[in-house]
Amino acid sequence: MNDQLQQVTHIDNIRLAEDGSSVTILDQTQLPNRTEYLTLRTPEEMYEAILLLRVRGAPAIGICAGYCMYVLARQMDERDYDAFARRFHELKEYLNSSRPTAVNLSWALNRMERVVTNHAGEPVEEILKLLEQECKAIHQEDIQMCRAISEYGLTLLKDGDGILTHCNAGPLATSRYGTALGPLFLGKERGMNFKVFADETRPLLQGARLTSYELQKGGIDVTLICDNMASIVMKNGWINACLVGCDRVAANGDAANKIGTSGVAILAKHYGIPFYVLGPTSTIDLSCKTGDDIEIELRDQKEIREKFYAEPMALPEVKCYNPAFDVTDHTLITGIVTEKGICYPPYTQSLAQLFQSEN
Amino acid sequence: MNDQLQQVTHIDNIRLAEDGSSVTILDQTQLPNRTEYLTLRTPEEMYEAILLLRVRGAPAIGICAGYCMYVLARQMDERDYDAFARRFHELKEYLNSSRPTAVNLSWALNRMERVVTNHAGEPVEEILKLLEQECKAIHQEDIQMCRAISEYGLTLLKDGDGILTHCNAGPLATSRYGTALGPLFLGKERGMNFKVFADETRPLLQGARLTSYELQKGGIDVTLICDNMASIVMKNGWINACLVGCDRVAANGDAANKIGTSGVAILAKHYGIPFYVLGPTSTIDLSCKTGDDIEIELRDQKEIREKFYAEPMALPEVKCYNPAFDVTDHTLITGIVTEKGICYPPYTQSLAQLFQSEN
Repeated sequence: MNDQLQQVTHIDNIRLAEDGSSVTILDQTQLPNRTEYLTLRTPEEMYEAILLLRVRGAPAIGICAGYCMYVLARQMDERDYDAFARRFHELKEYLNSSRPTAVNLSWALNRMERVVTNHAGEPVEEILKLLEQECKAIHQEDIQMCRAISEYGLTLLKDGDGILTHCNAGPLATSRYGTALGPLFLGKERGMNFKVFADETRPLLQGARLTSYELQKGGIDVTLICDNMASIVMKNGWINACLVGCDRVAANGDAANKIGTSGVAILAKHYGIPFYVLGPTSTIDLSCKTGDDIEIELRDQKEIREKFYAEPMALPEVKCYNPAFDVTDHTLITGIVTEKGICYPPYTQSLAQLFQSEN
Repeated sequence: MNDQLQQVTHIDNIRLAEDGSSVTILDQTQLPNRTEYLTLRTPEEMYEAILLLRVRGAPAIGICAGYCMYVLARQMDERDYDAFARRFHELKEYLNSSRPTAVNLSWALNRMERVVTNHAGEPVEEILKLLEQECKAIHQEDIQMCRAISEYGLTLLKDGDGILTHCNAGPLATSRYGTALGPLFLGKERGMNFKVFADETRPLLQGARLTSYELQKGGIDVTLICDNMASIVMKNGWINACLVGCDRVAANGDAANKIGTSGVAILAKHYGIPFYVLGPTSTIDLSCKTGDDIEIELRDQKEIREKFYAEPMALPEVKCYNPAFDVTDHTLITGIVTEKGICYPPYTQSLAQLFQSEN
């Protein structure tokens, strides 16, 4: 494998300290200008890192949250099971409140807590060992999942395809390869060449700062566009498929992802271009019947008016509406690519089957 | 009329000096942070002002170009008609090359040149007087046109409507009221209240810097959104109509406007929301049969990677595609609002009729 490519696909973005005392993350808010690592030790540092998107991307948030709970559990003075479990629950709820939309956050936190509740009354030292195993398992499973998603996704593409992607669902947002970008990195590894168009993804510019960075560093042909250029790029005939990640998928296939994703899907339908959502099954939330049940995070208005700019781009008194996500209607989605295979409509059936085959 | 509102609708954005020696423009690139006027005397200053969007908006470019040609004509040493006409033509071609898409630029320049060619052999002093009349007429006619467009556009709206607009087609882009924003200002004058959502319009942020500025200053309820939020705002049921300007309309109704407009139109169709294009008949170019005949200006890649930011948002080696306009297919347009009335499909007929009734 190409060294340059491997440096991107195997980037060390979330790392548990050997002694379990901290989690170190690559601070995504500093890219592409600075590669800075940040060590998280306190609940407040962890909450802030998730809230401010220093660590972001549904799978990456899940991995980080698992490690964080282990680090916090080790720090606890409580050695009585009940007190330990109570404090563990408090800290879990605190981290869970940092961002409401991505299901992987609560999924990973609940998975860690289940280790505690499934071993009620056992010695805390034993539970700590199990928690360490669990958080490491979450990470290892994510690596396998991303690889499997990349393999399934790649079956949908052919050499030379033009691809449009929105936001960032690459190695930085996951572990290795990524979800939406995974097929592109895996295809590149195998000598395929894609021509990728990356939406810059306002207001936080994950497409510009992260996706174009990852693809460029990995030697993949990438062109950065503003979000409002997706239509002309499709009309020009340059796009064969759209690949996007997801933060929560409802039982009927409605998929929450970065704000603007639903617009891309509507454009793709208009121009007759297939639109694929890629994500691990941990992103599928069968308890949400439809997208209407998914809470949409509203973020600070200043992210639109001021953030990143040398000076404000609107009067301070101008109101802004800043939803972090939108829901793409299942009727607009050609297929949902998971680590267990590709689901096609009707999603109410195909998604449910993923979980049935598990049991 | 409300004073605050009048200050916006009657903003003095393009002014010919009393002695005809210069044109003064409100430098739109400095808004919303600074209100700076710029005096243009040389061809190079004029070219730069149009190229860099210090003056922008199809009608405003036309008005400015008319005044500029008069100012330049006055400066010429040539007193022989042929030499004068030759130099006039050279300067006209030079200014015309500053931006290729907006038809109003060449429309106004050709209109000024026709004054010269229609008076072949006459004394240059006489021609200068006629040129002064002509450029002032272009401006006065634009005021009348914007008023008429606003009146026709207002018939399409009702009190309380939610409106989405893209880029800027308000008083700054025209003379008084504006085109796409004209009905909103006129309605406000008459006591109506709209709830307007302004796309920020990357990469040059005319929606944030100019539209939200004008509406806020005029006391109209405005909410700024990123371009990729238009879909969720429509899905939320907040939009009753989309109003946009235009830079060139082909004979079949295909309309070139700021990049991203075609995407808004596709979303509007998906959500069943009417989509109106507003502009003077000078924007209609019957010599373009369809949108395919409209040249799309490609601008500097740095506008996407770097402009306005405190530091770059993508690696310098990342390619960008930066078209300034896109073409909205006529099938997506509910109506085209001109100063002579509202055209409906089939546009090949309704647009042609506008010009027949003129003769």
